[in-house]
Amino acid sequence: MGKKLTPRNQDYSKWYNELVVQADLAENSAVRGCMVIKPYGYAIWEKMQAKLDKMFKETGHENAYFPLFVPKSLFEAEEKNAEGFAKECAVVTHYRLKTNPDDKTKLIVDPEAKLEEELIVRPTSEAIIWNTYKNWIQSYRDLPILINQWANVVRWEMRTRLFLRTAEFLWQEGHTAHETKAEAIAEAEQMNKIYADFAENFMAIPVVQGKKTESERFAGAEDTYCIEALMQDGKALQAGTSHFLGQNFAKAFDVKFTSKEGKQEYVWATSWGVSTRLMGALIMTHSDDKGLVLPPKLAPNQVVIVPIYKGEEQLNQISEVALALKKQLEEAGISVKFDARDTHKPGWKFAQYELQGVPVRIAIGPKDLEKGTVELARRDTLTKSFVERENVVDTVKQLMEEIQENLYTKAKTYRDEHITAVDSFEEFKEVLDNKGGFIAAHWDGTPETENKIKELTKATIRCIPLNTEKEEGSCVFTGKPSAKRVLFAKAY
Amino acid sequence: MGKKLTPRNQDYSKWYNELVVQADLAENSAVRGCMVIKPYGYAIWEKMQAKLDKMFKETGHENAYFPLFVPKSLFEAEEKNAEGFAKECAVVTHYRLKTNPDDKTKLIVDPEAKLEEELIVRPTSEAIIWNTYKNWIQSYRDLPILINQWANVVRWEMRTRLFLRTAEFLWQEGHTAHETKAEAIAEAEQMNKIYADFAENFMAIPVVQGKKTESERFAGAEDTYCIEALMQDGKALQAGTSHFLGQNFAKAFDVKFTSKEGKQEYVWATSWGVSTRLMGALIMTHSDDKGLVLPPKLAPNQVVIVPIYKGEEQLNQISEVALALKKQLEEAGISVKFDARDTHKPGWKFAQYELQGVPVRIAIGPKDLEKGTVELARRDTLTKSFVERENVVDTVKQLMEEIQENLYTKAKTYRDEHITAVDSFEEFKEVLDNKGGFIAAHWDGTPETENKIKELTKATIRCIPLNTEKEEGSCVFTGKPSAKRVLFAKAY
Repeated sequence: MGKKLTPRNQDYSKWYNELVVQADLAENSAVRGCMVIKPYGYAIWEKMQAKLDKMFKETGHENAYFPLFVPKSLFEAEEKNAEGFAKECAVVTHYRLKTNPDDKTKLIVDPEAKLEEELIVRPTSEAIIWNTYKNWIQSYRDLPILINQWANVVRWEMRTRLFLRTAEFLWQEGHTAHETKAEAIAEAEQMNKIYADFAENFMAIPVVQGKKTESERFAGAEDTYCIEALMQDGKALQAGTSHFLGQNFAKAFDVKFTSKEGKQEYVWATSWGVSTRLMGALIMTHSDDKGLVLPPKLAPNQVVIVPIYKGEEQLNQISEVALALKKQLEEAGISVKFDARDTHKPGWKFAQYELQGVPVRIAIGPKDLEKGTVELARRDTLTKSFVERENVVDTVKQLMEEIQENLYTKAKTYRDEHITAVDSFEEFKEVLDNKGGFIAAHWDGTPETENKIKELTKATIRCIPLNTEKEEGSCVFTGKPSAKRVLFAKAY
Repeated sequence: MGKKLTPRNQDYSKWYNELVVQADLAENSAVRGCMVIKPYGYAIWEKMQAKLDKMFKETGHENAYFPLFVPKSLFEAEEKNAEGFAKECAVVTHYRLKTNPDDKTKLIVDPEAKLEEELIVRPTSEAIIWNTYKNWIQSYRDLPILINQWANVVRWEMRTRLFLRTAEFLWQEGHTAHETKAEAIAEAEQMNKIYADFAENFMAIPVVQGKKTESERFAGAEDTYCIEALMQDGKALQAGTSHFLGQNFAKAFDVKFTSKEGKQEYVWATSWGVSTRLMGALIMTHSDDKGLVLPPKLAPNQVVIVPIYKGEEQLNQISEVALALKKQLEEAGISVKFDARDTHKPGWKFAQYELQGVPVRIAIGPKDLEKGTVELARRDTLTKSFVERENVVDTVKQLMEEIQENLYTKAKTYRDEHITAVDSFEEFKEVLDNKGGFIAAHWDGTPETENKIKELTKATIRCIPLNTEKEEGSCVFTGKPSAKRVLFAKAY
């Protein structure tokens, strides 16, 4: 464990970077922009994966795996998609190294092993997948195809930050093929809802469900649905997207099917994904100056038990109680770590598990043995209480639900307090500068106005919310008529 | 479903390729040597992953994730490892594409976006991981490190075959760091045993546990342990390896620790992996001319129920029985698919599920309704029987164990019959040509003899078995003294 974290109100960005490293979540690697996800961080990611995978399978999706590389000729086939990703892609040009003739201990690229066609390391897999689907789809009987892939992707970002923006990241990408436009739209909407459900009920992160404006859409999509979360510093974070791709990829890769009526038609498509970026959302939604705060559903260890003892005999006595308790808790479905290491003092362990966000800490000392109690500390509220030993399991079970709910409520209260409706551009700027958060404002619907506002304020339209009502008004910038407020914010 | 498979005795290799594609396991992609793992094949791989992951975690390992790319300077640091993989690695040299000025619809590599240092797409991750471990290890207190990673790797193989040898494949790679040589050796041995346990008790594939000779070792290892399986065509297949890496990587990356005695010492290492190659082993151990045969523990669907009906009323009656049965079986922990599609005839479905290796097929027709029976077919023996409806769950539960065991026994009998002890080189060649399988022969322990035999016969030393007794003898090729028989075979 390192030194204390920089307080959030002093330097939020520094706090974030320190937390990620000191809580053993991830670190930068020797490869520019690529991270190492450390075991503790990866264990949290595994929890997310397991839950999402279950949700995908329950809605009829299957997993598959497509190649890491996309031949350039396929990459460029869907024009907008290619344009969107061409500027930031890793390109494999050779397939062999050889000994450097000038220094036998070094290797150089073998110029004779140049690929005939360059391979792009996938930044997203629509191209390689739709080129494959072409062979899988002949008739309406072959549809729908509902496939998901867990994979790594590479986007050569210039300014990277652990989890939030890395050159390589892990994600899942769903790619589905449908007979009709309506079915594809329904699929894109369904998956965005699944993401919202996952974020809110599993990660305890409140999100706004919405649609992106044209300029913020995925390259190659007709419509991009998204879930937008609000971080503690008042900046928004796009936590998941689901795209209705129309027939763009079907046309680019010539994927047609014979319909029930015997006609040849292009297939309708969706794609949808969430990534290790969710780790960043998790951290910046719940954590505090002492470190990570984890919702119980995502915690690799939901409870840690720390013995407080002098000498081996006391340790043995306490261990007996602790291990019995651990067993009871585990039988109740709660994951428990018993940390009896003699290499670290209890105070160090307390700080460490606070840093790592373990929801409940149980301490057992000699006095607890006498009294038949344990000391129980909540990570979310930093409160402590003494609990009779026979009540521990029930108390902890209840706490798991309470903490999960408390974190969601707290984040939702903050988020709701930071959605501000404004009706003038002056107010817009003032709220953005002094309060942050989402700004609900009327917009005339043009990319020009959107860009102008972005240039002037760095705020972008995060989404056109799905679940708000129409309201006549006039654009906050141009005064032109508008039928609905959209959400602006500065964003990660 | 395509046409009938080429029989194994006619063209084994063709049978294999046809089976992989027709059973919907995998197919070749647009990227040379890279495969698409289709949903059904991936579902089997997921079963393997889940079981292995559990076994790794039960032995104290944690998952993490390291970068896809290895900077060239790190790649070349461990000389033997670098030499071993340099000839077949994908190299990223650029990080951007731009519009082709001569054809605006095409892209070209942007020559201005050349990387200062080339990045190798990992063929294996020792280099990037040991460069990371350097920062994680200061004292003996930081040891052991017991980490596993599920990842994709790329080896630019010139001759590829689905699952068996592909340019990109999926695998797990364990990378551990230890205080002592003995501890590292014990780890390497333990993981090889875990692989053997997994192969035999989960995949029903009998394996020989052994050590590789120097020339067959992993590049950079001091010792390579392996499990070797025997395919139906008499060729061996290396199904998993576990390496004792000595201090080679610690020295190459300068990873030292302060020992309990206060001395600076180099760390001891292991690495171990199995890959999607196991899918090939699975197919070529159990399958037959009708298609895949799956051990119940690996089957995505352990039972399929096919209704045989004319008209909707019959279908409804049968469905009622089938769905009740499905529920009962699922409650007993058995995975069941009910295929009531009216787009395909029962005969087509029978052939399809045989091709895909579903262990048990249940057919229910109008006569079965009358009699209160179902028709039950075993995939492994291709035998059928009628079972009273109330006995189906018990019968199927018992069959799951019986089939799993039968497949193992059958494969073990074949394997054991194909380990032939020979004492002359004439006999060696004769057995190799006419019978195939493993040849247990004395060898003088030199790479020269090993190479000579390989040149003359294409047989390699698959392993020096761990669990056989010493036996004085003389080398089958040179007549020099030998203390133990080793296993030769032609191999995948």
